[in-house]
Amino acid sequence: MTQTPVESAATVRRLDPEDAQLALAKVQDLLHRHELVENLAHRQEGDDQRAELVESLIQRQHEAELTALVNDLHPADIAFILGSVPNVERQMIWRLVSAEHDADVLLEVDDWVRESLIEAMDRQDLVAATESMDADELADLAPDLPPDVVAEVQKGLTVEERARLIEAMGYPDDSVGGIMDFEMVRVREDVSLEVVLRYLRRLPELPDHTDQIFVVNRQDKLLGTLSLSSLLVNEPESQVSEVMSTDYLSLNPLDSDADAAGAFERYDLVSAPVVDELGRLIGRVTIAEVVDVIREDSDEQALSRAGMQDEDIFAPVTRALQNRAPWLLLNLCTAATASFVASRFEDTVSTIVVLAFLMSIVAGIGGNSGNQTMTLIIRALAVGRITDKNVWQLFQRELLVTFMVGLVGSAIAAVFAWAISGSIAIALVMMAAMICNMLIGAMIGVLVPIVRTRFGKDPAMGSSVLLTFATDSLGFFIFLGLATLFLL
Amino acid sequence: MTQTPVESAATVRRLDPEDAQLALAKVQDLLHRHELVENLAHRQEGDDQRAELVESLIQRQHEAELTALVNDLHPADIAFILGSVPNVERQMIWRLVSAEHDADVLLEVDDWVRESLIEAMDRQDLVAATESMDADELADLAPDLPPDVVAEVQKGLTVEERARLIEAMGYPDDSVGGIMDFEMVRVREDVSLEVVLRYLRRLPELPDHTDQIFVVNRQDKLLGTLSLSSLLVNEPESQVSEVMSTDYLSLNPLDSDADAAGAFERYDLVSAPVVDELGRLIGRVTIAEVVDVIREDSDEQALSRAGMQDEDIFAPVTRALQNRAPWLLLNLCTAATASFVASRFEDTVSTIVVLAFLMSIVAGIGGNSGNQTMTLIIRALAVGRITDKNVWQLFQRELLVTFMVGLVGSAIAAVFAWAISGSIAIALVMMAAMICNMLIGAMIGVLVPIVRTRFGKDPAMGSSVLLTFATDSLGFFIFLGLATLFLL
Repeated sequence: MTQTPVESAATVRRLDPEDAQLALAKVQDLLHRHELVENLAHRQEGDDQRAELVESLIQRQHEAELTALVNDLHPADIAFILGSVPNVERQMIWRLVSAEHDADVLLEVDDWVRESLIEAMDRQDLVAATESMDADELADLAPDLPPDVVAEVQKGLTVEERARLIEAMGYPDDSVGGIMDFEMVRVREDVSLEVVLRYLRRLPELPDHTDQIFVVNRQDKLLGTLSLSSLLVNEPESQVSEVMSTDYLSLNPLDSDADAAGAFERYDLVSAPVVDELGRLIGRVTIAEVVDVIREDSDEQALSRAGMQDEDIFAPVTRALQNRAPWLLLNLCTAATASFVASRFEDTVSTIVVLAFLMSIVAGIGGNSGNQTMTLIIRALAVGRITDKNVWQLFQRELLVTFMVGLVGSAIAAVFAWAISGSIAIALVMMAAMICNMLIGAMIGVLVPIVRTRFGKDPAMGSSVLLTFATDSLGFFIFLGLATLFLL
Repeated sequence: MTQTPVESAATVRRLDPEDAQLALAKVQDLLHRHELVENLAHRQEGDDQRAELVESLIQRQHEAELTALVNDLHPADIAFILGSVPNVERQMIWRLVSAEHDADVLLEVDDWVRESLIEAMDRQDLVAATESMDADELADLAPDLPPDVVAEVQKGLTVEERARLIEAMGYPDDSVGGIMDFEMVRVREDVSLEVVLRYLRRLPELPDHTDQIFVVNRQDKLLGTLSLSSLLVNEPESQVSEVMSTDYLSLNPLDSDADAAGAFERYDLVSAPVVDELGRLIGRVTIAEVVDVIREDSDEQALSRAGMQDEDIFAPVTRALQNRAPWLLLNLCTAATASFVASRFEDTVSTIVVLAFLMSIVAGIGGNSGNQTMTLIIRALAVGRITDKNVWQLFQRELLVTFMVGLVGSAIAAVFAWAISGSIAIALVMMAAMICNMLIGAMIGVLVPIVRTRFGKDPAMGSSVLLTFATDSLGFFIFLGLATLFLL
């Protein structure tokens, strides 16, 4: 019987974006049943031996199911599952992952998962998992590995690979050098495409994400790039030098990885060559690394706004405390300072108690409004839209926008103040204080991120502490100060 | 004289990640000088004619410089510059951009820039710019175009392209169908690689981001994918069916674009086929679109946390007001409510005035702490780490972590309260209220995003309003309530 096309298609395994989540649900289900059996066995203490037997039988069956399930997954999905279960279960699943996936999974997992996996592995397994890695992958992992494992693996490297490892480890994490790899195909410019095609056919496969081949001279100086597209559509008799492109983006290993990511985004690149000061090709960056950079930067920004670093949602509570307490204590100090400022007006507040209930509105809206300005500015800074030429213009515009929103908002707030206090004077003081405080928020929202960026600091986290501090303390000060002047 | 390799390299134009910013600085400089000349001319009213002559001469020179500068840039860089200058200058530069770049620039600019460019173009230019676009590009732009332009351009399309345009316009913006394109190379499974290579050589070029070719049968059913890498390293005599991969990720046009982006990220893809329910190939998604999705989602999240949408930093002030006022007014309402709640305890506060200064600390720290929890949970939700099985565990963990941070933090706050009031009873009330309010923040931080996500709502923006509302109002209520019970 001949196979029909439809039947052959039935053997296709289609990855689905939701595969990993389905697998996670199955894993959790198995783990859950596993736990139930354990609990059951512990409860039936009367019939010890039989219960234990049943338990171990069922356990073995669960483990077999889990092993089959997990090892059939893409290494990235295994990594996802390891990051989505508590540590005890994580270690159990990690033991079931077959050794062939070890290297890939270790490279895919988040940093905090990797630590816990490496801790639980013995030296031999670690050496086995890492000795198959490329120099750039090893360099990424090296800081997490025990030094003797790194030493052992280094021994097995060729001289060239060792040189690359040392080079890769020398670049900062957030530089192009930190994300580049060394898997490149190089050709000379004075050969025909036919020769290139024959050369490629001798390779077992092309490096991942090869969309272009690099054209270099004898000194390894980069002369141009030959896209696979040009290679495929041009006649084999053409010379490389005729069809190669000399209009390409090249990176320096010390460029920031965020700048490189911006360039990939803007020019829709899949890979880019990295060259040194002499124009020599030393590596390449691929979109896979760039996507990780973009994602990590965006995650980091979101977390740092809340004053945290990345956290294992199943990490021991003590770790979580270290992560979260500093920021909260810092906020506590600024809140206490603001509260101390306000307490200097105790006489005013004890005379007109309603001020106590209105002052937090003034402080809060100043913070919210400043936060809007700051978010816009931080974003414009990240894209590179803010220059010396337009800073002043932006500053004026933000003050104007804030003043207009402030007029409307403070009018509403004044009505509320009048309703709650019955005093038009209090309403007017409220209005004036609120507009002032919003303008202060706008000023800080524009200036602080710009100044911090100019001094090479991260604009997000520090700026928002300063903003809250200022709008709280000054909000109280202006409101209660005006009240003291005009209402007493 | 023969050309040395070094000289030939001198003709290489190397893009640099910072190119666009340098160009922006130059453009701003030219615009600035331009403005100076205009102002100068206006001031010298005495010598009208001569001044005008000089002005127009210098202006023409500036325009020539600008034209040369801008048209030498990559369309993505032109788009960047257009988005980085105020509207008047934007229109001036846009007039200088040569017509051949129009289509590319329109596709590259941000939505809010595109609107202002399209507004200023006449019908003919618009038709000229858009008639060269692919169906998927046209579909992206169509909502911004005047209907008669769309009708005109549609007339010029082939039947197949028109069908594609209608199909592409039918999918939601945030679906795979909304980001897919139709530029695919298809081959049959029963031909040799030699035949494929010959077929490709007849194409003018491969579609951008072609890393694989799709293997389909007569009914256009997708049977497998042939990577360019396999095509290049295997012998030309091999059959497509022997070397194609049947283990690939395929997308459905109605999948969410964020899910697709997650899959690209996880499996390091460059392109993925889109198939319909019957398994027929209808399009493909490339990494270029995916990178845009990732970046836009992350920008949107950052902005929506501050209660805004994307805003042209040079937009007219009225627009900015529309963007920012709703959120601030919403915050004003929640703050007023909280303040109203507190004002119910006027007697208590007027008896012990110092409570007025302490209550905002209780409210603020509850909000900060809840915000940390919420940030972590929103992130875990986005990655798909939270399932029915671990929600309860996470909830308990967050409460525990918050309780422990709360113990430390509230002890410090209690010391401050004691220092400012001299009363141990007030310090104890402060401590209890602060812990309670932080626990409320943690509960809301876990539950609200999860519930909102389950109902298909965006977890970021709405959740944070609710959080602040709860921690403010309940913070005041608990603190002043406890004070009323125990201190009066």
